[in-house]
Amino acid sequence: MTEPESILARKVIVTCALTGVAATRKQCPAIPYTPAEIGEEARRAYEAGASVVHIHAREDDGSPSHRVEVYGEIMKEVRKRSPVLINFSTGAVEVPKEERVRHITELRPEIGALNMGSMNYAKYNSTKKGFVFNWVFENSFDTIQFFLDAMVKSGVKPELECFDVGHCYNIRPFLDMGLVKGPLQFSFIMGVLGGVPATAKNLAAMAEQIPEGSIWEVIGISHVQWLMIASALALGGNIRVGLEDNFYVAPNVMAKSNGDLVEKAVRMARDTGREPATVEEAKSLLSLAG
Amino acid sequence: MTEPESILARKVIVTCALTGVAATRKQCPAIPYTPAEIGEEARRAYEAGASVVHIHAREDDGSPSHRVEVYGEIMKEVRKRSPVLINFSTGAVEVPKEERVRHITELRPEIGALNMGSMNYAKYNSTKKGFVFNWVFENSFDTIQFFLDAMVKSGVKPELECFDVGHCYNIRPFLDMGLVKGPLQFSFIMGVLGGVPATAKNLAAMAEQIPEGSIWEVIGISHVQWLMIASALALGGNIRVGLEDNFYVAPNVMAKSNGDLVEKAVRMARDTGREPATVEEAKSLLSLAG
Amino acid sequence: MTEPESILARKVIVTCALTGVAATRKQCPAIPYTPAEIGEEARRAYEAGASVVHIHAREDDGSPSHRVEVYGEIMKEVRKRSPVLINFSTGAVEVPKEERVRHITELRPEIGALNMGSMNYAKYNSTKKGFVFNWVFENSFDTIQFFLDAMVKSGVKPELECFDVGHCYNIRPFLDMGLVKGPLQFSFIMGVLGGVPATAKNLAAMAEQIPEGSIWEVIGISHVQWLMIASALALGGNIRVGLEDNFYVAPNVMAKSNGDLVEKAVRMARDTGREPATVEEAKSLLSLAG
Amino acid sequence: MTEPESILARKVIVTCALTGVAATRKQCPAIPYTPAEIGEEARRAYEAGASVVHIHAREDDGSPSHRVEVYGEIMKEVRKRSPVLINFSTGAVEVPKEERVRHITELRPEIGALNMGSMNYAKYNSTKKGFVFNWVFENSFDTIQFFLDAMVKSGVKPELECFDVGHCYNIRPFLDMGLVKGPLQFSFIMGVLGGVPATAKNLAAMAEQIPEGSIWEVIGISHVQWLMIASALALGGNIRVGLEDNFYVAPNVMAKSNGDLVEKAVRMARDTGREPATVEEAKSLLSLAG
Repeated sequence: MTEPESILARKVIVTCALTGVAATRKQCPAIPYTPAEIGEEARRAYEAGASVVHIHAREDDGSPSHRVEVYGEIMKEVRKRSPVLINFSTGAVEVPKEERVRHITELRPEIGALNMGSMNYAKYNSTKKGFVFNWVFENSFDTIQFFLDAMVKSGVKPELECFDVGHCYNIRPFLDMGLVKGPLQFSFIMGVLGGVPATAKNLAAMAEQIPEGSIWEVIGISHVQWLMIASALALGGNIRVGLEDNFYVAPNVMAKSNGDLVEKAVRMARDTGREPATVEEAKSLLSLAG
Repeated sequence: MTEPESILARKVIVTCALTGVAATRKQCPAIPYTPAEIGEEARRAYEAGASVVHIHAREDDGSPSHRVEVYGEIMKEVRKRSPVLINFSTGAVEVPKEERVRHITELRPEIGALNMGSMNYAKYNSTKKGFVFNWVFENSFDTIQFFLDAMVKSGVKPELECFDVGHCYNIRPFLDMGLVKGPLQFSFIMGVLGGVPATAKNLAAMAEQIPEGSIWEVIGISHVQWLMIASALALGGNIRVGLEDNFYVAPNVMAKSNGDLVEKAVRMARDTGREPATVEEAKSLLSLAG
Repeated sequence: MTEPESILARKVIVTCALTGVAATRKQCPAIPYTPAEIGEEARRAYEAGASVVHIHAREDDGSPSHRVEVYGEIMKEVRKRSPVLINFSTGAVEVPKEERVRHITELRPEIGALNMGSMNYAKYNSTKKGFVFNWVFENSFDTIQFFLDAMVKSGVKPELECFDVGHCYNIRPFLDMGLVKGPLQFSFIMGVLGGVPATAKNLAAMAEQIPEGSIWEVIGISHVQWLMIASALALGGNIRVGLEDNFYVAPNVMAKSNGDLVEKAVRMARDTGREPATVEEAKSLLSLAG
Repeated sequence: MTEPESILARKVIVTCALTGVAATRKQCPAIPYTPAEIGEEARRAYEAGASVVHIHAREDDGSPSHRVEVYGEIMKEVRKRSPVLINFSTGAVEVPKEERVRHITELRPEIGALNMGSMNYAKYNSTKKGFVFNWVFENSFDTIQFFLDAMVKSGVKPELECFDVGHCYNIRPFLDMGLVKGPLQFSFIMGVLGGVPATAKNLAAMAEQIPEGSIWEVIGISHVQWLMIASALALGGNIRVGLEDNFYVAPNVMAKSNGDLVEKAVRMARDTGREPATVEEAKSLLSLAG
């Protein structure tokens, strides 16, 4: 049992997922596209209390980018504005895995995101009685091994992204091989159709699967996000917000920047009695070198 | 499984426990003693968003009272200021059970609190390596039956107060006897030494014990209260705050009135995406007659 | 909460997975290949207490078969020996989905198995520090819809096979579309690397995801099977054994027939106080027509 | 998460509660009364696979006894027949606590039972719509401290008996005081009306409350016992059977001796893949000196 006192004493790492790849400014005008815009949003998130930013690169027109140069520009723009820790995505569909990890190995951000399993990934519209989209999100053990190996060799901390309970266990063979060592960092993505439903009890079940000494955060997708934030705070976990995951600070109130979302997350953490981690504290909690 | 969408759609009944019996104004200057003071605090709680107030009577010097007249005065002072629903305590040590329920049967508040089991009730001081207090809190099945019967006959809704997982089940014989009928209202008191430890998972376990169609609220004692509020909001439950349970709106920030505590509770509810219930909505959720 | 009394009163459907496709007689001499052998094993399972048999077809040399004729022969051989209910597999890798379901729609067994999600599917060898096999098991929402539709139109009850917690939820869009109606039958496959780890608590978590009124069974893979059988019996679920899932009746004691495995499963059920369902009782529990 | 492999590797301590105090030979002819009869039953339990026997003393007419001499005779009769470990009860109603512990401190059995909380303790008859019995079982923190202190000073291992989730936590103040040290041994009594309902999930919840490194057993009362045994085996716990808890080896089949009950418990353990602990293994698992 994790005692309530020990949960209250734990600092909360607030991560902000600044932009994603799917949403556009037509949907939400605050979404940053260019490296400078992303740098500005990183600064706003940092000033509101985030200690980590999670970033997908985009071309200047907003389309997804996998170019190392763009990631390099983004890193520069973020670094010059604040000491916030950088987490780069490796997620992509129909891009060779070598391309998906090159910006990680060359630029060496503090953290690299790594999807820990395969699943259906869909969105369903109840009014239209049909799927909005519906694909198979493939992350085979070979792919996982490839990314893990690349990150470990580059000194980049892997963020183990788990969309279902079984995914949390998929790191075990690699621990056994000695490819990766604890303490580990997990993210639990709740509420994608095809993955684990977004309930507080399911979140607790996810947290039970991981090795002793690991830390975890919740990523709640869309309108259930804030409920998942409350759940994670209560269970002793860390939290992620940001325009990639959810545009709304409240029902029908769209965020004007990632800063708005982080500000709310920080307030919710403090309301439960937990303080957000500073960048230095986050480094320590994440066991980052240096 | 309770779906996140259905949780978001549920209104939250916010109850405020205005005064209790144990704490004094030396400890917290905002604690109301007299009927008029209690009436004022009820109004503040109502205006901040509470739909129910839980009340213990006190004599004007602050000492505990079981006199029907005092309860009657309190009711008058509350009623003239707001339509907030009234829940009267029946808890007391070394008072005959007939005395403990008379104000309920004579004054007929909307709700009467009823302790659903026996337990040790203690507080431990780790610095001094000793118990601050430590007694056996007796609520035998006979006592429970006596109170249930009295409340049902008076048309007062019993609030079934459970301090441990087993207590949640103790209503079953009385359901089987036909003494009481659902839908039932439960309160889960978390964090008393002798009762269930205050964790989100234990709260979820409590909620699993109760009959289909029941509703529940959490009562978190002392500094873990806000963590328990977040847990209950995430799990779909109702919440109670108030000076009886906890003086502090934030670490080291004492509430200036019950209104401060309700205001925070309402903000936390809204932050998860849930709206506080109005008095009318609370009546409906509690299945109160009239 | 499911009351212990109600669990004790529930009959247990014992299903036997007679042969599978992967294992050979070199590994376990009792594995049946031909329709007559499968028919004999079905009889043994039935006589030991199974009410359902789950069947993959094989060619006479033991290689996997998807030919309707072979399934037809199997059905004949099973039917002439006992009234046991027939459940045909639809699982296959690199076979077009039309082929995977034809024996279901043409032969109309009582039940057809249906995989409810995509996942990694692997086996790891800790001694060799490597994967024994490791592939992506694809069952997109389109495929699920195709199979569901085919089964419903043929009057065949779908058995919803779930390898992870999220899979249990994937039926929801199809319920919303009206493609399928409850009561539903779920199988929880525990212990495949890539899917949910085989623990009693994870099994309980699976059972929490499914709609009210559904029934479920556990399928434990390999040496954790008997632990999962005990878990399912305790939680009120049904159970599956058979040479497809596990050869061993006890550590180092290989089954001489599927009957041995069913016999043990029935003993375990009775040891907890639960009786195995007859074929007629299973029909009723599974809400099978006729 | 406790891995299934580690559960399978854990030996199961089978404890047999030989006689209790409440039941008589009219109800169950196999119940032993005299020291020699209790010694014989201990031998049968040991030969069937138990490594611990839990004993209440009786006068030769079957009435409850608290006399040290009787306990001394029992110990002699048990010891001369087998090396089974001895656990003496301290439970009693309306007996001064000094009397309740004297046989422990003078005779120094390996283990002494200790009730860890207060509760209602009742039995309800649904047919008669009334309580069969219904009392308050008082075990205040003072009483607990008194017994703990006596046992620790005598070198007797306390068995911490918990009837509800909160009881599992009541040892914390005494750990903090340094009065007792881990590893601790817990018993979870499931299914007493007034205590925690007997479900597999509630058992899992109990097991989550206890300090790292502790071990636990389940005690299921009456007809739910075997379901609780299956639950405990699946969750990795130890098990208790015996005529004190339940007379029946199967519905309507009364045990002819405690040996019958232990035999079944051992079979159930082996059926899940777990081996019963020998006396030597039990000593080690219980961290008994010597």
